[in-house]
Amino acid sequence: MTREAKLLLDVYREKAGLPIDLWELDLGADRYLRDGTTFPKEIQIAIQRECSAVLLGALGDPRVPGLEHARDILFGMRFGYDLYANVRPVKALSDKLVPLKGRAAKDVDFVVFRENTEGIYVGMGGQFKRGTPDEVAINEDVNTRKGVERIIRAAFEYARSHGHTRVTMADKSNAMRHAHELWLRVFHEVRAQYSEISSDHVYVDALCLYLIQDPSKFQVIVTNNLFGDIVTDLGAAFQGGLGMAASANVHSSEPGRVALFEPVHGSAPPLAGKDIANPFAALLTVGMMLAHLGWPDEEKRIERWVTRAIDEGQCTVDVGGTLGTQAASSWLRDRVTSEL
Amino acid sequence: MTREAKLLLDVYREKAGLPIDLWELDLGADRYLRDGTTFPKEIQIAIQRECSAVLLGALGDPRVPGLEHARDILFGMRFGYDLYANVRPVKALSDKLVPLKGRAAKDVDFVVFRENTEGIYVGMGGQFKRGTPDEVAINEDVNTRKGVERIIRAAFEYARSHGHTRVTMADKSNAMRHAHELWLRVFHEVRAQYSEISSDHVYVDALCLYLIQDPSKFQVIVTNNLFGDIVTDLGAAFQGGLGMAASANVHSSEPGRVALFEPVHGSAPPLAGKDIANPFAALLTVGMMLAHLGWPDEEKRIERWVTRAIDEGQCTVDVGGTLGTQAASSWLRDRVTSEL
Ligand SMILES: CC(C)[C@H](C(=O)O)[C@@H](O)C(=O)O
Ligand SMILES: CC(C)[C@H](C(=O)O)[C@@H](O)C(=O)O
Repeated sequence: MTREAKLLLDVYREKAGLPIDLWELDLGADRYLRDGTTFPKEIQIAIQRECSAVLLGALGDPRVPGLEHARDILFGMRFGYDLYANVRPVKALSDKLVPLKGRAAKDVDFVVFRENTEGIYVGMGGQFKRGTPDEVAINEDVNTRKGVERIIRAAFEYARSHGHTRVTMADKSNAMRHAHELWLRVFHEVRAQYSEISSDHVYVDALCLYLIQDPSKFQVIVTNNLFGDIVTDLGAAFQGGLGMAASANVHSSEPGRVALFEPVHGSAPPLAGKDIANPFAALLTVGMMLAHLGWPDEEKRIERWVTRAIDEGQCTVDVGGTLGTQAASSWLRDRVTSEL
Repeated sequence: MTREAKLLLDVYREKAGLPIDLWELDLGADRYLRDGTTFPKEIQIAIQRECSAVLLGALGDPRVPGLEHARDILFGMRFGYDLYANVRPVKALSDKLVPLKGRAAKDVDFVVFRENTEGIYVGMGGQFKRGTPDEVAINEDVNTRKGVERIIRAAFEYARSHGHTRVTMADKSNAMRHAHELWLRVFHEVRAQYSEISSDHVYVDALCLYLIQDPSKFQVIVTNNLFGDIVTDLGAAFQGGLGMAASANVHSSEPGRVALFEPVHGSAPPLAGKDIANPFAALLTVGMMLAHLGWPDEEKRIERWVTRAIDEGQCTVDVGGTLGTQAASSWLRDRVTSEL
């Protein structure tokens, strides 16, 4: 998939002449198996200094037990660059892809703002009396005022600038009374500053139910790291599966600050090398990156051709087609190229 | 809804002569508003000593800010009686209720074993520098070897005794590396003792996706407290909503030990007193309780009539009917009564 993403990017660089310098980095399982390194400090710093955006391929290789390399790289970027907003659009591009009775593509169009630097992902905690019958294992869900406020604010700012009328915050404050009392309190404070936007609070369990009952009710959802992870995989099911879901990890809209773009899917080892995996999530991710870099029309163009590909069956089996990875990808690339 | 549950129970006690002594307890918002008590110790002890089962009505009243009374009672019973298995069947009783394209009621039939005494629900944690820009708020997800093992074992025992061939464990061990490494390790140990049952491990985010893509693949799901909460609300969407979902909270199958039965839904204040809420979750909960007390045929009878009610439109609006709460409930009660 990553190869296909690069080919599409090459079209933009070479044919359309977009001024994008590409630096291909050898990070991942091969590197780890060769020399044991995952995400060396000097590479981390060089990216931060030199790059506007990182396009991350699918990570995770079963040859590496525990997938340490994948986490080092992914969390190394998310945390290391303080990319606090994981922006995950949940948008169905074709009616065919929507698995819900009585719903069409137009009913699935919301964006999840997932907090990306805190919560249970900080890794705090430990194991006590490990391996004995008395073992206790703890992970801590850590939230800061600053972290909670900036992601909630980012969601409201996005809603305002995109003409959305509703922001939904999801937590579990009825059970996580320390951590999510903070979320609820900050949410009430921030929403008061966006009086033109209606906003509401739901418990995450109820959110999952409501999303299935009627996804069209949602426009912008803001939530913590863990719930954002869960809700966006659920959302991927509304888009046609993980083969269709793209995402951005950004610090803010400050130009020049590095951002990270990745498909929501991981590496799917059983599919690797078989020319069957769906390349569209990777191609849509290229689109999101181009929009971030200043070419929003190109994101729309890619989306439009993905929709056509699905509607005409020029796609992989998981989304109702018969093509292999490369054929689906080059069909789309040819169409995009012919328009440039 | 609780009134309707009681009326159905009365049919069983009075008409069918089932030897059930009923003790009606004044717990809930009215009591709390009257004298400020929620779940007095002497009541807690008396229940434990005297009762085989508790049938809990819908809790939560907007007149009580923070809903302290609801949590005191619910968590007081779950934790106080060590009811470690929250058993939540996700079973669609009519094709009409299934919201997924191409799926019928037969495709939605699995049981979630939700750990019910640990995890993020223990309430450990706190807030530091509260109200300042430097505030930190933490909840701890606490897991013990004993707690994890007994719920996983309960799921496998259930699978074995019910002829199921697959158990799925869901965690987030790729992010919660202390807490869920324990879950994964114990899962591998326990599964080795049930070699006739195939079992697998999925991350909770992927589980939500897979459930929407094909719920028929799942038979028994075991997971922690928080994920069980989320997955069963998602599951409720497959059953026709919260108006259709029943649950049991049990310590184990030891006879004589008190167990707690409750609809998955809360109190839904906007519906209260309007004769529009769906009574079937409460009636199905009566069925689960009767099965636990030794009359499994009565659970099947109630389920069978709920299915008929839905198919014939003798039900509330949320599940496609036109009746009010009382009319739907008495239609069902009359059918059950006529068979006894
Ligand atoms: C691979 C995993 C640690 C990651 C996450 O949980 O964030 C993934 O599920 C995602 O959503 O990007
Ligand atoms: C009311 C709430 C605390 C409760 C929970 O989270 O356990 C409810 O959602 C449930 O599923 O029983």
